[in-house]
Amino acid sequence: MRAVIMHAPGDVRVEDRDQPAIIEPTDAVIRLTATCICGSDLWPYRGIEHVDHTPMGHEYVGVVAEVGADVKNVEVGDFVVGSFVASDNTCEICQAGYQSRCVHNVMMGSIGTQAEYARIPLADGTLVATPGQPSPDLIPALLAASDVLGTGWFAAVAAEAGPGKTVAVVGDGAVGLLGMLAAKQLGAERIIAMSRHADRQALARRFGATDIVEERGDAGVARIKELTNGLGAHSVIEAVGTQESMEQAIRATRPGGHIGYVGVAHGVTLDGMELFFSGVHLHGGPAPVRRFLPELIRLIWDREIDPGVVFDLTLPLEEAAEGYRAMDERRATKVLLTL
Amino acid sequence: MRAVIMHAPGDVRVEDRDQPAIIEPTDAVIRLTATCICGSDLWPYRGIEHVDHTPMGHEYVGVVAEVGADVKNVEVGDFVVGSFVASDNTCEICQAGYQSRCVHNVMMGSIGTQAEYARIPLADGTLVATPGQPSPDLIPALLAASDVLGTGWFAAVAAEAGPGKTVAVVGDGAVGLLGMLAAKQLGAERIIAMSRHADRQALARRFGATDIVEERGDAGVARIKELTNGLGAHSVIEAVGTQESMEQAIRATRPGGHIGYVGVAHGVTLDGMELFFSGVHLHGGPAPVRRFLPELIRLIWDREIDPGVVFDLTLPLEEAAEGYRAMDERRATKVLLTL
Repeated sequence: MRAVIMHAPGDVRVEDRDQPAIIEPTDAVIRLTATCICGSDLWPYRGIEHVDHTPMGHEYVGVVAEVGADVKNVEVGDFVVGSFVASDNTCEICQAGYQSRCVHNVMMGSIGTQAEYARIPLADGTLVATPGQPSPDLIPALLAASDVLGTGWFAAVAAEAGPGKTVAVVGDGAVGLLGMLAAKQLGAERIIAMSRHADRQALARRFGATDIVEERGDAGVARIKELTNGLGAHSVIEAVGTQESMEQAIRATRPGGHIGYVGVAHGVTLDGMELFFSGVHLHGGPAPVRRFLPELIRLIWDREIDPGVVFDLTLPLEEAAEGYRAMDERRATKVLLTL
Repeated sequence: MRAVIMHAPGDVRVEDRDQPAIIEPTDAVIRLTATCICGSDLWPYRGIEHVDHTPMGHEYVGVVAEVGADVKNVEVGDFVVGSFVASDNTCEICQAGYQSRCVHNVMMGSIGTQAEYARIPLADGTLVATPGQPSPDLIPALLAASDVLGTGWFAAVAAEAGPGKTVAVVGDGAVGLLGMLAAKQLGAERIIAMSRHADRQALARRFGATDIVEERGDAGVARIKELTNGLGAHSVIEAVGTQESMEQAIRATRPGGHIGYVGVAHGVTLDGMELFFSGVHLHGGPAPVRRFLPELIRLIWDREIDPGVVFDLTLPLEEAAEGYRAMDERRATKVLLTL
């Protein structure tokens, strides 16, 4: 089968790999309908994370091609969506809603889903079947649920976005934008997008942003305070993962407010004394997307939300290298790969 | 009047100061019945925080001696308890339960309550009157409510201690011990005290600890995991404020679990990547004691709790210097000063 391999930073190729097979009786194998490139795939692309002939990808939707002997919840032919972390969905941590930290978790990035087929460990816990075969226009939205929508949704939940709340969003990438969509769905009163790109501002408005702040750093924090009676936002979604973005999030939140942070924190150190006196709630990490999948699939199926519009470039899998370049150069927010 | 002044690190004296008077119409002046020395008073005593002829103390109970023209909620003769932060209790932040970050907050430490009298700003918001004049044996417990009990209580609430939860407590000082009492009151199923001092272990058991862990650092974390099916505690109270104690708290908490941290974070830096992948909820800061005061006073008045036993040394105000020495040398957990 054809699959994306990153040979080294900046060197993405589509090559032949062995087609995956069932290894454990709890596995399934899916034939992918679509996959995509994640903002986090740019870390190794840019040489910030180690990469060496690595199969890429952790987002996926597709059709079940084969199931192991113990698989009961999905069957061959089902159209399925899964999270970027495989989980049994039965352990104590899963049951508490933290499937991304399942005691048996498998990171799908270690398997690679930018490929024609993928093995899905713990298929019963990981995969959620859609109510039927989706019409083609729903594919991007369902694919978004696999990571970026689920991650933005978790960030909004972690930030306790809801009725009466002012939610500020640091980061105008796909996750930040879908965090705005989530905040809107959760009933937030006011959503402040921090963005200086006209195209992303437009998408932010479409997803529910009521205010745009173009300033960054201290000036951005000052602007958020101005918009919130000097107090700061009730809820802040952090969807970047840098020192500046985390500090911006902490400083833009009012005492007692909530930060949901989902940007993978590269090179970030938090000053304990500043955090202490901020009085904020801080929660985040790898999003337990599986917790939200049934609800997200329902909202997409019923066409109540359309997170698929975050994909602004669609390419065949064979052209994955161009997809990486486009995201690296910020010519695209999020690239969908068709099969 | 007589008052405690710290001239320099390690140099505590009791001297004459002007008796405080009403400055703002929202002030009250109280005659102190008792005050005490806080673990945080040891930071300047040890030269870690700046000190220069500074009036000391921020915990207090006493009798209202004088009220400003605008004070309505307390009157001369009332026995009152207040938090270590004066707050209006009406602003948006106070109404959300974060009175320690009131938009008009005044740190009582900047006034100094280790003295015969103290001016209390924002008296209507800050002071809570007891149902009547307390019997003398209730004074230590009511004084504890002013800071250490309220702070331990906030830590337990921030850590979401409650029914079915295993709560680990890092720190066996007065705040940590009263965090155990709070966790017990909040219905925690299991309370693990991290302590290697026999006398404090005994007090921990009295306050509700079900398990004692003597190990520290990585060994302490491993022991907590052993006691929690390999997962870590649901809730961790951090009541020290050092790099080691914060790391211990983060590592001892299960993914999705909650940390309530109330140790003032001196020289602490948190690694963003570790925090991200821990998946914990982190909340803390200067405790909004005022939020809890009415309930704490009720529990004490009805003799349902006795936090006063954390005071293991009682001295007259004139002997404050010996109180500081005893706490610095760990001969005492918490020193009450009588007037």
